[in-house]
Amino acid sequence: MKIHIITIGDEILIGQILNSNASYIGELLSNNSYKVTSSSVVGDKEEIIVDEINSAFKNNDVVICTGGLGPTHDDVTLPAIVKSFNTELVKNEEVLNDIKEIFNKRNRELTDTNIKQSYVPKNCQPIRNHNGTAPGIYIIEKDKLFFALPGVPLEMRAMMQDFVLPIICEHFPQEYITKIKTLMTTGIPESYLFDEIKKIDGIIEQGNLAFLPSQFGVRIRVTAVEQDEETANEKIFEIEQQIRSKVGRYIYGKDSQNLELIVGNLLKDRRFTIAVAESCTGGLISSRITNISGSSEYFERAMVTYSNGAKVEQLGIDEDLLHKYGAVSLEVARLMAEGIKAVSGTDIGLAVTGIMGPGGSTENKPVGLVYIGICDDTLCTAKEFRFGDNRLLNKDRASQAALEILRRNLLGISYDQ
Amino acid sequence: MKIHIITIGDEILIGQILNSNASYIGELLSNNSYKVTSSSVVGDKEEIIVDEINSAFKNNDVVICTGGLGPTHDDVTLPAIVKSFNTELVKNEEVLNDIKEIFNKRNRELTDTNIKQSYVPKNCQPIRNHNGTAPGIYIIEKDKLFFALPGVPLEMRAMMQDFVLPIICEHFPQEYITKIKTLMTTGIPESYLFDEIKKIDGIIEQGNLAFLPSQFGVRIRVTAVEQDEETANEKIFEIEQQIRSKVGRYIYGKDSQNLELIVGNLLKDRRFTIAVAESCTGGLISSRITNISGSSEYFERAMVTYSNGAKVEQLGIDEDLLHKYGAVSLEVARLMAEGIKAVSGTDIGLAVTGIMGPGGSTENKPVGLVYIGICDDTLCTAKEFRFGDNRLLNKDRASQAALEILRRNLLGISYDQ
Repeated sequence: MKIHIITIGDEILIGQILNSNASYIGELLSNNSYKVTSSSVVGDKEEIIVDEINSAFKNNDVVICTGGLGPTHDDVTLPAIVKSFNTELVKNEEVLNDIKEIFNKRNRELTDTNIKQSYVPKNCQPIRNHNGTAPGIYIIEKDKLFFALPGVPLEMRAMMQDFVLPIICEHFPQEYITKIKTLMTTGIPESYLFDEIKKIDGIIEQGNLAFLPSQFGVRIRVTAVEQDEETANEKIFEIEQQIRSKVGRYIYGKDSQNLELIVGNLLKDRRFTIAVAESCTGGLISSRITNISGSSEYFERAMVTYSNGAKVEQLGIDEDLLHKYGAVSLEVARLMAEGIKAVSGTDIGLAVTGIMGPGGSTENKPVGLVYIGICDDTLCTAKEFRFGDNRLLNKDRASQAALEILRRNLLGISYDQ
Repeated sequence: MKIHIITIGDEILIGQILNSNASYIGELLSNNSYKVTSSSVVGDKEEIIVDEINSAFKNNDVVICTGGLGPTHDDVTLPAIVKSFNTELVKNEEVLNDIKEIFNKRNRELTDTNIKQSYVPKNCQPIRNHNGTAPGIYIIEKDKLFFALPGVPLEMRAMMQDFVLPIICEHFPQEYITKIKTLMTTGIPESYLFDEIKKIDGIIEQGNLAFLPSQFGVRIRVTAVEQDEETANEKIFEIEQQIRSKVGRYIYGKDSQNLELIVGNLLKDRRFTIAVAESCTGGLISSRITNISGSSEYFERAMVTYSNGAKVEQLGIDEDLLHKYGAVSLEVARLMAEGIKAVSGTDIGLAVTGIMGPGGSTENKPVGLVYIGICDDTLCTAKEFRFGDNRLLNKDRASQAALEILRRNLLGISYDQ
């Protein structure tokens, strides 16, 4: 069974936006044991879209098209579909009612342009759009499925979940079940992780694993293709246990979980509060913690003490010690953590100081040097890290390392890099 | 002239990573007057890659392939190229020397796997890789160009700039020059922006404009295709002037400039310092400001006063007023801006308070309600905003609105939404 995605839009070809729609569809289908076999992007030109639809529909069982269904002059997917499927546009009363309803709700008047959007190909089934005015298109021909969805992510995603995926499941029931689980690791380089996991007999040769590194850590993707869901789940479980036996303490979460969610849950469970003192990360750690809904339960405050003055005034750091050790030092990281905990009256204080680059380095303190301090009721400590020379990546890495130190602290796991 | 990009990798098809390589190539070529006409993604399967290369090379003048050139078992681009071009792999001494040099530098021993990487297709010209071990591949056949580059962004980008682009320019000198300039706007909805610009006679019909909305604002892409660079630049300039005459005050920058860079430059020029008090944005504004290298010149400190206690203790906000108006109010936003300016001794204080959702709303204060305060030596004011119901988008929108209020303050432009 072959599935092809066509993304329509000049803005993707010229690199103005990333193709997140194709990515979303790929992920949704993978998570439901269907694999996208290929994907293409074409511009907003009718004849090119016609050719692409024809060739994709000839060579695949399912074609999902996104984009170009809007009402303006540069939306040409609908006329292209009409040509590809040799049909014509007809007014659809149901779609018109949906559009009218949306305009009623928004208290706006219907224009001719909007009424035009109720015209759909004669041989299609329109896909209702609860989030916008452009309906999706579903055509079935010779046991093959064709879908066209709007490019607006919110509208496209709802139609994929509510309509497209169930139709695919109905028409192509599966012989094999694919299960994917991703284990999120951080604090260990890819090659070390690989070398550790390689020690497990036959695990690499079985072909279930993929390693995906980023500045936040390495994701280990475990894939199992089995005859039924139970066997696939068992296989995933077995591999996960093997991996955990070797590198378990580096694994902080699974699938799309991020570290701020994990530490948030740990803090909530323990009814702990936290405050953060940031220098080089400039508020990023605090921003990540507060990305989690409900974080006000455990996040009390943060200070971005960029200047030395701020470190002294806000965190009560002794000016002489600051000058003796330098703002970027193990000692100051520890004092910052101690200071923010004391000022805020929280259970935990977390602090970061470092040199993100490109400027600010000295002979002994290169770009990428970062100290992270953590303080709870029983312990106050700090660690040194050496990251790279890209400012934004360094901010990401330092924030990830700080959250990982927090996670290990909460779980009582020691931190060695 | 037709250019096609082939991206190779299962991780893109299943939506695990976004296709940023295709995006980079599309942007680089666009900026040099070449347009990518289509693009495709296929998985790590040799026979599928062979088919894709054959069909792309048949239908296009230039094909650029990325990914699958590494040394491990799941890298199959090289054998696919050998089949597509009916050739064989031969050892290349120059490539071997490059690989040896990299290993010498890293003080590591060369393995058989690495030596294998010095084998390239017989009829190709290898592209030197200064950032890694896998060479790129360049094949010219029947006046058509084929390139294969490693998928590692750093390596791919260097080869695109230093080798691929110059070769394309040499083989396909241009009759027409394409110039693209993007005007970055914020604080005005897409439809209002469109309605304003539409008033300029014939500007939409000429087809030079595209509108690209995001949570940070609307980008207006201006494209000019002309016989020479000067005429294209003049055309862009003319259209830009027309647009600026209508919506100039909403335009904060051009091309890839972001608002934190723009306000950073303004602050630096004026030798002003700034401090930020954040509640609902949780450190995001401060993190964005400090993304800019050299921001320590003007950024003094920030306080993420998430709890009411922090607002009272850190910013000196009167507890009675806080209870009277509520933490999310015009008055408290103004007091926060005043407080952070006073505590930090900066020229400007910027403050945000609001409800990001999904929880935290009350009858009179819905999710998405945000107040932004700003205080300088002559004025202290605040504004109300109403954003949507997505927490992360709301954080982005609120941070963008705050930076835009700062920009307008620095330029003396009034803020009306």
